[in-house]
Amino acid sequence: MIENKNQSKTDLSQLGEFGLIQHLTKNLKIQQESTTKGIGDDAAVLNFKDKKTVISTDLLIEGVHFDLAYMPLKHLGYKAVVANISDICAMNATPTQITVSLAVSNRFPLEALEELYEGITLASNFYKVDVIGGDTTSSQKGLIISITAIGVADEEELIYRDGAQDTDLLVVTGDIGAAYMGLQILEREKQVYLVNPNSQPDLEAYEYLIERQLKPEARTDIKKLLEELDVKPTSMIDISDGLSSEIMHLCTQSKVGCNLYEDKLPLDPQFINTCEEFNIDSTTIAINGGEDYELLFTIKMGDFEKIKGNPNLSIIGHMTQESEGVHIVTRANTKIPLKAQGWNSLKESEE
Amino acid sequence: MIENKNQSKTDLSQLGEFGLIQHLTKNLKIQQESTTKGIGDDAAVLNFKDKKTVISTDLLIEGVHFDLAYMPLKHLGYKAVVANISDICAMNATPTQITVSLAVSNRFPLEALEELYEGITLASNFYKVDVIGGDTTSSQKGLIISITAIGVADEEELIYRDGAQDTDLLVVTGDIGAAYMGLQILEREKQVYLVNPNSQPDLEAYEYLIERQLKPEARTDIKKLLEELDVKPTSMIDISDGLSSEIMHLCTQSKVGCNLYEDKLPLDPQFINTCEEFNIDSTTIAINGGEDYELLFTIKMGDFEKIKGNPNLSIIGHMTQESEGVHIVTRANTKIPLKAQGWNSLKESEE
Repeated sequence: MIENKNQSKTDLSQLGEFGLIQHLTKNLKIQQESTTKGIGDDAAVLNFKDKKTVISTDLLIEGVHFDLAYMPLKHLGYKAVVANISDICAMNATPTQITVSLAVSNRFPLEALEELYEGITLASNFYKVDVIGGDTTSSQKGLIISITAIGVADEEELIYRDGAQDTDLLVVTGDIGAAYMGLQILEREKQVYLVNPNSQPDLEAYEYLIERQLKPEARTDIKKLLEELDVKPTSMIDISDGLSSEIMHLCTQSKVGCNLYEDKLPLDPQFINTCEEFNIDSTTIAINGGEDYELLFTIKMGDFEKIKGNPNLSIIGHMTQESEGVHIVTRANTKIPLKAQGWNSLKESEE
Repeated sequence: MIENKNQSKTDLSQLGEFGLIQHLTKNLKIQQESTTKGIGDDAAVLNFKDKKTVISTDLLIEGVHFDLAYMPLKHLGYKAVVANISDICAMNATPTQITVSLAVSNRFPLEALEELYEGITLASNFYKVDVIGGDTTSSQKGLIISITAIGVADEEELIYRDGAQDTDLLVVTGDIGAAYMGLQILEREKQVYLVNPNSQPDLEAYEYLIERQLKPEARTDIKKLLEELDVKPTSMIDISDGLSSEIMHLCTQSKVGCNLYEDKLPLDPQFINTCEEFNIDSTTIAINGGEDYELLFTIKMGDFEKIKGNPNLSIIGHMTQESEGVHIVTRANTKIPLKAQGWNSLKESEE
């Protein structure tokens, strides 16, 4: 299994809080013109001129949102940044900066935080977002990551959740469900490892699923693609909690209903094969599994021709009047009410 | 002692994550013109026109940053907002928005979070900052609060830590050390309470100190005061970790030295009396105790007449050439090197 092979251990208290922040952030470069002042003062200073500022924030808790038994720290750092950037993409804005706050118990040596920051740095370089601030402190238990992402957009570019009309088409980017099945694979391997630490798992058949779980990407490319296609979605959200949960958000806020078509769901062959192997229904996973970080949006019916056949985009349903409700239309052509069974962290709490 | 007398308990999982956010934030009103879109989408949208955006973030952990045995949740909510707003004030900017993320173990019923949010709402109304987003999730242990504060300023108004010159005067607002002594009083009462839960403490003699600890205020008034006095500080920081630690930050970043005068430290009579009662040196506490949230800044020597005698401002020292180092000049006129003994959370970690 994935193991931390780093044997070197430096106690965090040797550096102190300010020394630690300086040490961890020393490889970060400012890349955005809008970053006037980054780390090092009471606050960062940004200059967005006449554009709108977009802000989103997330809190990730060890044992609730991630399990370090199969999530390497570098991947965790990368994924934490991606999850936040994805929220900025879901506004059709461009991510520009993040702040990163960490709390760690003394179980974590400096080398562990360096690994985490490697992933954060990798993502910040890849997505060209500046790390402009943060806080590093101790926790009573485990690792806690709080990220705030900042982005920028012209007013007319922004897309909210409440703009869908009852005749719009429902579109999703990429494919869905794979991140959840990747988690199932990793969970299974963790159990195998606990029984036999010498087992050498062959994970080749699940490579895509595991990558979707451990190293997801934010769809920063979609804004440009939609511009090129000359399509402006009427509403948009990212898929973090699961497709059905996100559809419910769009419908509730836009006051519309929806018909989702089971046979239109974009599923990767590896995903389908693994669902069969696990003997679970792929549609159930595709609509309820989270963490795909794809974008879900609605477009005017008249824009159908513009996106038809685009390999990045799948039309998976259409909006209806609110009174018609929210349904999935199965392959057998029966209509089943859709329920948001998205992940609810509050059900998993214990102390 | 301060006790949670709220006996009603509603399990958080009954509301779910989205229900919980809606419930907690329903009393919040948008007050800032710059808040285009608050809670309810993937991200909030802000419009600062041609002004600069200022951002600061903080992570507060139960058992590390606060002890619920003597910190009522409502006060905690208020103080968490104040601590973040104070960072915006330290840039000479005006706080306008905050995001609030919470993680709680299932030890906390809904009523506890309502109490916490009461304090957050009180502070957001008092300081006219909009709560524009956040995240609510479960924790493995205790309460975790992550706040990001956003503010606005014209470029020429902003004051950084690195602008002090070697002939500048060092000025502090209000008085210092009281918040730390308030904590000592509360710690003592907690011990008394543990031995005898029926004891009725008489805290009247410590009222100011306890208020400074439990309900500090951010100096949002200083920006206006300085404008009226026609003084623009050359550098500025807020006192969260302790005066000596903050002086070191200004000196390091501005590449100057400093002479701090013991007899100029602004101390409240209640603070001095209590230090005597505890038999500890008031100067040591005044320069090392944190959480006062006063502002520390440097001004040009020529501005001396403009601030002289102002009851809100005390001149406590002057900057020197970097090579002269950072010292406190005692009442006995001896020079002692100043060391930053500010609070370091990383030394207190355990798991």
